[in-house]
Amino acid sequence: MKFTILKDQLNESIGHVGKAISSRTTIPILTGIKIDANFSGVTLTASDTDISIQSFIPTQANDLTIVELQLPGSVVLPAKFFAELIRKLPSQQIEIEVQNQFQTTIRSGSSEVQIMGLDPEEFPLLPQVEETRMFQVPSDILKTMIKQTSFAVSSNETTPILTGVLWNLANNKLKFIGCDRHRLASREIAIEMNAIDRLPQIVISGKTLNELSKILPDQNSLIDIVISDNQALFKMQSILFYTRILDGTYPDTTKLIPQSFKTELVVKTKELADAIDRAYLLSREDKTNIVNLIINENNTIEVSSPSTELGKVTEQIEIHSIKGDLLKISFNSKYMLDALKVIDSDYIYIGFTGSMQPIIIKPEDGSAILQLILPYRTPQ
Amino acid sequence: MKFTILKDQLNESIGHVGKAISSRTTIPILTGIKIDANFSGVTLTASDTDISIQSFIPTQANDLTIVELQLPGSVVLPAKFFAELIRKLPSQQIEIEVQNQFQTTIRSGSSEVQIMGLDPEEFPLLPQVEETRMFQVPSDILKTMIKQTSFAVSSNETTPILTGVLWNLANNKLKFIGCDRHRLASREIAIEMNAIDRLPQIVISGKTLNELSKILPDQNSLIDIVISDNQALFKMQSILFYTRILDGTYPDTTKLIPQSFKTELVVKTKELADAIDRAYLLSREDKTNIVNLIINENNTIEVSSPSTELGKVTEQIEIHSIKGDLLKISFNSKYMLDALKVIDSDYIYIGFTGSMQPIIIKPEDGSAILQLILPYRTPQ
Repeated sequence: MKFTILKDQLNESIGHVGKAISSRTTIPILTGIKIDANFSGVTLTASDTDISIQSFIPTQANDLTIVELQLPGSVVLPAKFFAELIRKLPSQQIEIEVQNQFQTTIRSGSSEVQIMGLDPEEFPLLPQVEETRMFQVPSDILKTMIKQTSFAVSSNETTPILTGVLWNLANNKLKFIGCDRHRLASREIAIEMNAIDRLPQIVISGKTLNELSKILPDQNSLIDIVISDNQALFKMQSILFYTRILDGTYPDTTKLIPQSFKTELVVKTKELADAIDRAYLLSREDKTNIVNLIINENNTIEVSSPSTELGKVTEQIEIHSIKGDLLKISFNSKYMLDALKVIDSDYIYIGFTGSMQPIIIKPEDGSAILQLILPYRTPQ
Repeated sequence: MKFTILKDQLNESIGHVGKAISSRTTIPILTGIKIDANFSGVTLTASDTDISIQSFIPTQANDLTIVELQLPGSVVLPAKFFAELIRKLPSQQIEIEVQNQFQTTIRSGSSEVQIMGLDPEEFPLLPQVEETRMFQVPSDILKTMIKQTSFAVSSNETTPILTGVLWNLANNKLKFIGCDRHRLASREIAIEMNAIDRLPQIVISGKTLNELSKILPDQNSLIDIVISDNQALFKMQSILFYTRILDGTYPDTTKLIPQSFKTELVVKTKELADAIDRAYLLSREDKTNIVNLIINENNTIEVSSPSTELGKVTEQIEIHSIKGDLLKISFNSKYMLDALKVIDSDYIYIGFTGSMQPIIIKPEDGSAILQLILPYRTPQ
């Protein structure tokens, strides 16, 4: 293998596949990036067995020659060193040449670097994904959906299925649900479904979706999503992102969500979030994160931290509109802040069915997002 | 005590004194910020016993009323919570009122916060510093001098005096020296000395000087520096920064510095730094950070990492000018990078007196900065 390549393009590509490199792997070949060079361009691949990412650098793009191939071939190079080295090389022109025993020479300007490469035959093959079940989601919407749901997944590995985000695709709607035992976040969009009517429900690790999110382009270019029995594949312009689908049955969360409410509030999102944030400063000191919310008769709500050795925070917030009964309720301020942070709406709707029942949070003007948090037992 | 104060000014002042708060202190009163309010303004003080910082907020500045006093007084409030809270309060107007038992109420917009304060009488007094020995240094120059020397101090607490920067003030010159057992960094400036001819040599902790550096304004306003027997005081416009002077005798470093050289080189600073940085990528893998430098006959120098399991980096650098013998030498690449980083000059002078003698690094066009690193025994 021998080719020259432009530094910026190689750097960008390394940045993409690098998200699949695990620093904790015990399999030496997986600490590397596989490089394949042929006449159409250079392909980089990295994998931690759960995620595999492939990035393609074409020979030419927009009249710019990026790769000049002299001899096709493959090698695996140690990812961390390779990535740092390429970033620091002195010239835009980088030559990479593989000799005997996968010993690789990298030349750039007055630098010459020898790296001991590994046999690319030892690198795991990419998963086989049949493209029979495929649909498309705009990149920016997919990013937002991940942001609005992945924070709510469980970090507790004893119930692996809850560490994932549920994807539910039916009736021209795609719905994401993230849920641990204390809260739930869901987001729904309308979607074109051509070839397929219905997909089985799939669950993808929340962490993996966050990694995907960093690679997804910000524009609303369409991302092809291919689902097979145990793999999902996300196809971007020059990147393939493979991930394992989590095994197991996702619990039915529909019955968690109350259908009628005893108290319904609309308040300014930022005012509520800021007030809870200040109460959280104190409530986190006793590790519970509890704050109390009281609806008063004078059209205000009072948010307060419990009294601690440090002191007490008390906040008054004006109610924009209210239906139903007065109420006292306590909940985890951190969960409420997380929920409010991902709702991009000036006013927020909160529905209560009593001090021991789930609290529902939605943007005032829509139902595509639904957040649920369970209250704490009200302190006396 | 009762006053109202503007949020931005209070925040800035908390930021300054906060640098003296240690998170590891076991003395409860030192986790707090002392607040004193009187008719001239509000004074904040914090101390970790080694450093004490006082920041003054005047009642008025530039026709802007910052503080409105209703009742003079003092209190100590828990620093971490107080700082975070003030940053998050909803209104620019903040009212602070102390009631019985130092219980303090902070009001801003619709927020009301109770904080349990502590007795200001328990707060340690500021050191007494007689202003008999005082001199002035422009703020920006003092910052630069700290940057150019403090990185070289020892981090090993077994020889406390070497964790400090030596200040040598004599013959209208101020010289800083930082030195551990492997390298030395010095910087000298000319200075006006009015009232005093000569100061005893003093040594101030490198860490403390780095904290001071964060508070020093970027402009070239003059900083008054007052030296007493065991304290140094830095006086900025509205901030007083007190620090302990380290006990002990600083070793005589003058005889470390060679007076004649066998080989003298001038090279481009950035080219050398970048080349060593790439060699460092490999050399740090074996924890020694060793790189080799060879002066070749063809007017180039070769910088290389030792061969490791990972590979080898080899770099060629053009020599701008050279006097004396050819040479092979090995040194710690990290030390050389640290030295090159703080020299702001396009070309750099390096003087060698042999492969086992100290290496001297200076800007090509001046001698105000001198860096020294000890070589390693050249590998065979």
